[in-house]
Amino acid sequence: MNFSSDNVSPLCPEILAAITQESEGSALPYGQDELSGKLDAAFSAVFETDCVVVPVATGTAANLIGLSNLVSPYGGVVCHHEAHINQTESTGVAFFGGGAKLLTMDGPSAKIEAERLDAFLTTQSNRGIHAVDPECVAITQATEFGAVYTVDDINAIGQVCKSHDMRLFMDGARFANAVASLGCHPADITWKAGVDVLSFGATKNGALAVDAIVLFDPSLRKKTEKARKRGGHLFSKHRYLAVQLLAYLENDLWLKNARHANMAAKLLAQSLTRLGATTVHQPQGNELFVRLDDNLAALLRATGIIFRPWPAIGPGAYRFVTAWNSPLEAITSLPQHLNLT
Amino acid sequence: MNFSSDNVSPLCPEILAAITQESEGSALPYGQDELSGKLDAAFSAVFETDCVVVPVATGTAANLIGLSNLVSPYGGVVCHHEAHINQTESTGVAFFGGGAKLLTMDGPSAKIEAERLDAFLTTQSNRGIHAVDPECVAITQATEFGAVYTVDDINAIGQVCKSHDMRLFMDGARFANAVASLGCHPADITWKAGVDVLSFGATKNGALAVDAIVLFDPSLRKKTEKARKRGGHLFSKHRYLAVQLLAYLENDLWLKNARHANMAAKLLAQSLTRLGATTVHQPQGNELFVRLDDNLAALLRATGIIFRPWPAIGPGAYRFVTAWNSPLEAITSLPQHLNLT
Amino acid sequence: MNFSSDNVSPLCPEILAAITQESEGSALPYGQDELSGKLDAAFSAVFETDCVVVPVATGTAANLIGLSNLVSPYGGVVCHHEAHINQTESTGVAFFGGGAKLLTMDGPSAKIEAERLDAFLTTQSNRGIHAVDPECVAITQATEFGAVYTVDDINAIGQVCKSHDMRLFMDGARFANAVASLGCHPADITWKAGVDVLSFGATKNGALAVDAIVLFDPSLRKKTEKARKRGGHLFSKHRYLAVQLLAYLENDLWLKNARHANMAAKLLAQSLTRLGATTVHQPQGNELFVRLDDNLAALLRATGIIFRPWPAIGPGAYRFVTAWNSPLEAITSLPQHLNLT
Amino acid sequence: MNFSSDNVSPLCPEILAAITQESEGSALPYGQDELSGKLDAAFSAVFETDCVVVPVATGTAANLIGLSNLVSPYGGVVCHHEAHINQTESTGVAFFGGGAKLLTMDGPSAKIEAERLDAFLTTQSNRGIHAVDPECVAITQATEFGAVYTVDDINAIGQVCKSHDMRLFMDGARFANAVASLGCHPADITWKAGVDVLSFGATKNGALAVDAIVLFDPSLRKKTEKARKRGGHLFSKHRYLAVQLLAYLENDLWLKNARHANMAAKLLAQSLTRLGATTVHQPQGNELFVRLDDNLAALLRATGIIFRPWPAIGPGAYRFVTAWNSPLEAITSLPQHLNLT
Repeated sequence: MNFSSDNVSPLCPEILAAITQESEGSALPYGQDELSGKLDAAFSAVFETDCVVVPVATGTAANLIGLSNLVSPYGGVVCHHEAHINQTESTGVAFFGGGAKLLTMDGPSAKIEAERLDAFLTTQSNRGIHAVDPECVAITQATEFGAVYTVDDINAIGQVCKSHDMRLFMDGARFANAVASLGCHPADITWKAGVDVLSFGATKNGALAVDAIVLFDPSLRKKTEKARKRGGHLFSKHRYLAVQLLAYLENDLWLKNARHANMAAKLLAQSLTRLGATTVHQPQGNELFVRLDDNLAALLRATGIIFRPWPAIGPGAYRFVTAWNSPLEAITSLPQHLNLT
Repeated sequence: MNFSSDNVSPLCPEILAAITQESEGSALPYGQDELSGKLDAAFSAVFETDCVVVPVATGTAANLIGLSNLVSPYGGVVCHHEAHINQTESTGVAFFGGGAKLLTMDGPSAKIEAERLDAFLTTQSNRGIHAVDPECVAITQATEFGAVYTVDDINAIGQVCKSHDMRLFMDGARFANAVASLGCHPADITWKAGVDVLSFGATKNGALAVDAIVLFDPSLRKKTEKARKRGGHLFSKHRYLAVQLLAYLENDLWLKNARHANMAAKLLAQSLTRLGATTVHQPQGNELFVRLDDNLAALLRATGIIFRPWPAIGPGAYRFVTAWNSPLEAITSLPQHLNLT
Repeated sequence: MNFSSDNVSPLCPEILAAITQESEGSALPYGQDELSGKLDAAFSAVFETDCVVVPVATGTAANLIGLSNLVSPYGGVVCHHEAHINQTESTGVAFFGGGAKLLTMDGPSAKIEAERLDAFLTTQSNRGIHAVDPECVAITQATEFGAVYTVDDINAIGQVCKSHDMRLFMDGARFANAVASLGCHPADITWKAGVDVLSFGATKNGALAVDAIVLFDPSLRKKTEKARKRGGHLFSKHRYLAVQLLAYLENDLWLKNARHANMAAKLLAQSLTRLGATTVHQPQGNELFVRLDDNLAALLRATGIIFRPWPAIGPGAYRFVTAWNSPLEAITSLPQHLNLT
Repeated sequence: MNFSSDNVSPLCPEILAAITQESEGSALPYGQDELSGKLDAAFSAVFETDCVVVPVATGTAANLIGLSNLVSPYGGVVCHHEAHINQTESTGVAFFGGGAKLLTMDGPSAKIEAERLDAFLTTQSNRGIHAVDPECVAITQATEFGAVYTVDDINAIGQVCKSHDMRLFMDGARFANAVASLGCHPADITWKAGVDVLSFGATKNGALAVDAIVLFDPSLRKKTEKARKRGGHLFSKHRYLAVQLLAYLENDLWLKNARHANMAAKLLAQSLTRLGATTVHQPQGNELFVRLDDNLAALLRATGIIFRPWPAIGPGAYRFVTAWNSPLEAITSLPQHLNLT
């Protein structure tokens, strides 16, 4: 069992079937095809508001292009120190943002807290021509430490942003896991709470390679499309981005896959706890952070279980990530299996 | 029949099969998987030299990232005025090149001629601190007007580049069609002739979405990989880029597909000529440029044939592009079919 | 006599006096001082409209920062092929413009003609997501070949820009020479004709080092000031930029200096013609382009006269530039002097 | 008395005299003049090693252009959180560095400590393709909190940089004050200790507007000059940058001015202490940080003394900066003067 990340999983059967169905016939390129034409409506239905969808093939592209709409070359993007855009996307924010700078803050479980954000924005804003003024805020749902912002959390953040005249971006690489975990409506944690742009992840959760930039402010369409083209992210065979996303939304596949992964994480937490692990963060989505002693870590590895140390949390800490295809039964029977071994 | 571009074609069966085979099991992300590990060897075998392969999902990304290796933020890229990088890739060269500038020249059939290039480089170089010095040359094989550089052409260009201390880049979006047309060895028109970096197209010729940046100078690997990551072009499920490329090379599928497309273009040229069209450029690869009178154009359209006007060539000029799946028989019988209608 | 450029001249006595007067006492930095506070009013008086002034130390900075207001990272700046921003400012437009591209056209004497511009904009605009759309037009007054746009010329260009929804930028490195030559009001060839941003040169015409970015659209102030700061162009001792500009405007020093230089160019044209030179362009400002045979060129050089060949115009062509301090008498008596030698 | 910054001071008489002397005659532009030709030799004499000097008009430009030599668009610049390049130069590092990112650390008095730097570099380096690797280190001498690195301090930092294969940059906006304070040879705290590039400040210490980028690695000349040109920082009347710097070095004017300012800071510390202030940092150069109660602050202000609150240090903290022209006697007699009032 490979828990090193959810991106080690393959594409799921429904999406493979969708691609296979699209393996004949010609279609106009660059998003002018029939399937691509259905994207806005499909997402608008899910989010119950008019939104514009610009698909790209990677989550990093979705973040960087989506975010570049909300900040000028002279401005700052407020995010958590552990944010993916700060830790794991090279110098991409400055690249796509024409020099824009990350202004980082702290918070538990990689979450930004509304009150602390308010204080941060108050201190950092209006410091004059020499300084970098914050222009937008970026949060990750679920966070890099596997935590899920509640509906109230995000509403509070949205309020703070509004009061400071900041735009709000959400990195939703694991958005499906968060919605599945909260049991809320996707609108509740996005546009209704003040989110302007969402990167809506699909790759980690069953797609081959597609994430959607969802613009709740339709006026951002043109700029986003230009940034996508200029970045080399506009697919000629755009229908293959579209068909993945449409299959992903159909019959709530995105939630089905996410619920499976979340369940797997819960079961894995139980199994590991029974084996002596300590959970650092209770899994809310599909990421599990635990402390293992060396013996247990070695035992798990010897059984062929793959997982990664997570030094950002501390020594002895490890991350396990489940996916749409994690084997629930094997996870549940892990303690039993290991005792028999 | 849709001849508006080769990118309207679907992925081909062999590549669909390869993706399907890779729809189970976990694999390390970001190119650390087994399939990705085979890419360098597979391309080195094809090119009969050690080369490094960095795959991306679009031809524009392959061009922009590949090219950015060969020019500084203060330098110029010499290319034909009609080059894809000049006409059809937004401000991407400056974006990935940190400001690098395109210096354009002319030539028949969108080809750069060695002698004229020599003169251009002589005039444009060493003009002092205020000017933009050329630092590399970019050619497209086959060109944007469907012409194919001969082995001698490229050797001559390579010699000129060497004598001016310029690096040489090749946009090979239709590289397969060029090789199939020339019947040469791929090495003859690349590294043996002085090409440093090649964008090796697959998307237009049967892939779902993958083009390879081929580095004949292996020392460029690190910078290229960093540029790919920063640009949001590093796939997490990298195996799906790899599996497409491996299938594309296997059993010379790339050449088989290209030969089919080239043959289709030749047959189409014959059929259209018989119907009264004048070829502007004899098709050497899979692109055909013809002049049609209004009646013939209308007749073809009425039959359901799709093709595009090409004002860069002049009024009454049209482009037809064939692909790996163009129906040879229907193309051949087009005159007969239209007379019967 | 050194006619290689007007930038070989020293600062003029009035500006030295102004700097000297400002050699005592403390003053707030970064433009908050009293003198800097007078700039907007002083320029608004000259131009008879409310304008915002952002001074920098070089003409290139004035052009690049000023222009960067009017174009997006995905857009194009239409200019003459010979424009300073295209030939002599490195890759600066892309640098300050976040990737913005120069789209060049031709015209006599380095002038853009309204009709041709109209056609160019019609052809280049709205070419789709892959292309670079023109977003603004940049003209140089006086041009790089010494020509001066008439009031009508600029009004016609302004009309074309308006009809295509383009912003209009003017590189006024030799704006004073143009106004002196035309005898018009500065407003007539700027905001009244549709110019949005002007780089108002002073360095070539008597200052130590200062050019002003003049914004006829005051809403551009904030962005311009941020771009200036970020580019390292915000002076701490800003008063020394201000004091130069104030002295330059006082008692129409800028026009006095320019009239002197223009007169010198006219006299020089007469003297050189008498010596056998052919004028390529009749001097309208302070730049003179002539054809000299080798003997005459050698004779002038032997007399200690410095001037530069101008290959852009052709073999045997030379440029002579006069300045605020060119010695009128020596210029007039040049033929006599050379015959005596 | 204005202690709000050293940049409120005027240019000093020696530099005014030098400019005045250069107010006649013509000189080649862009650094080809005789005075500019003397710069390398003059600085090489001061530093007792062959170095290359590229002058610009502002300290921010010197930092940004100088630093851009030492970091790639994908890399990080390690600096103190309080560093001028992090706090006070907008998004300039990313702008000139093509996206390069600041990686900040802490330390007392805005100083980077060698041991902590070693640990930081160990943790931050080689974190894989997604992360930003440190590529160089930037320190400020004297620091933003008025502290001066000792010769040993800088040697230790240089050693750490060397062991991690990092280049070392020094922001020397107040380099003269540091040398004057240490009484060392300028070589001891620069190239001998491993500094690759120094921005050598003059503007704050008596010049009108000039700082020098000093390259101890002469191979960086070409790139630096290109970056300067492209940034709009190449003066046409370059002689006025040169003449300021030559006068600044002549007869050790730079040290004379700095010694005066440093002495003024010491005397001011004594006077303020006598009046009830607490020094936060003992002044080592010309910056003094103190805590004042509200009454004292008000009293000083009522006397016409200007100074700025410094919230980065805490509430009740203020910064006083002295300059080459601070009135020593008035500073010394301040307590007496205030008692008399």
